[in-house]
Amino acid sequence: MQRVGFLLKVKDDPETIARYKEHHRQVSPDMLDALHRHGWHNYSLFMRPDGLMFGYVEVADSFQASLDGMSHEDANSRWQAMMEPFFESPDGGRPDENMVEIEEVFHLD
Amino acid sequence: MQRVGFLLKVKDDPETIARYKEHHRQVSPDMLDALHRHGWHNYSLFMRPDGLMFGYVEVADSFQASLDGMSHEDANSRWQAMMEPFFESPDGGRPDENMVEIEEVFHLD
Repeated sequence: MQRVGFLLKVKDDPETIARYKEHHRQVSPDMLDALHRHGWHNYSLFMRPDGLMFGYVEVADSFQASLDGMSHEDANSRWQAMMEPFFESPDGGRPDENMVEIEEVFHLD
Repeated sequence: MQRVGFLLKVKDDPETIARYKEHHRQVSPDMLDALHRHGWHNYSLFMRPDGLMFGYVEVADSFQASLDGMSHEDANSRWQAMMEPFFESPDGGRPDENMVEIEEVFHLD
């Protein structure tokens, strides 16, 4: 198991943020199932009021393996296409290709 | 159990950041013991290269109860006094009084 922290940035717009949260209250069962099959566990997303997102996830093997596995899932392709307009991504592209992993500097079980 | 995400900001200075990380590789056993006694579990700190810190912790009861419990621990008072100069805190004060909790918008077990 590997713990991963990553950052993303949703556009700082009240309506965009409200719709983003609404989508995340009703993620499709096939998307959740795909995440599990590719080793995403204890996965939480947190949001600062300006749209800065922090993700915490415990992956079975490596973050890259869990991202690669999802990249071939139809449910994820549909989800990422729906999510793309919500995010600030200077170079474009799917949100799951713009997750910036950050360094763990402390851990206590 | 409650999952908590919070933010802190270490000064954006290479030497400060290096020393912060070094301190976190050798936290005193009495500080770690106090955290456990006050319900801090699966606690990780992540850092962006500019010093933005994200904390993830699973607390036994509530974040406030776990913070309040630590506030009476000598080991924590010593630790917070040592940590204070590392942080950007506009209004001064101990770092553990400046943790900004952010909203969980998604969770998958």
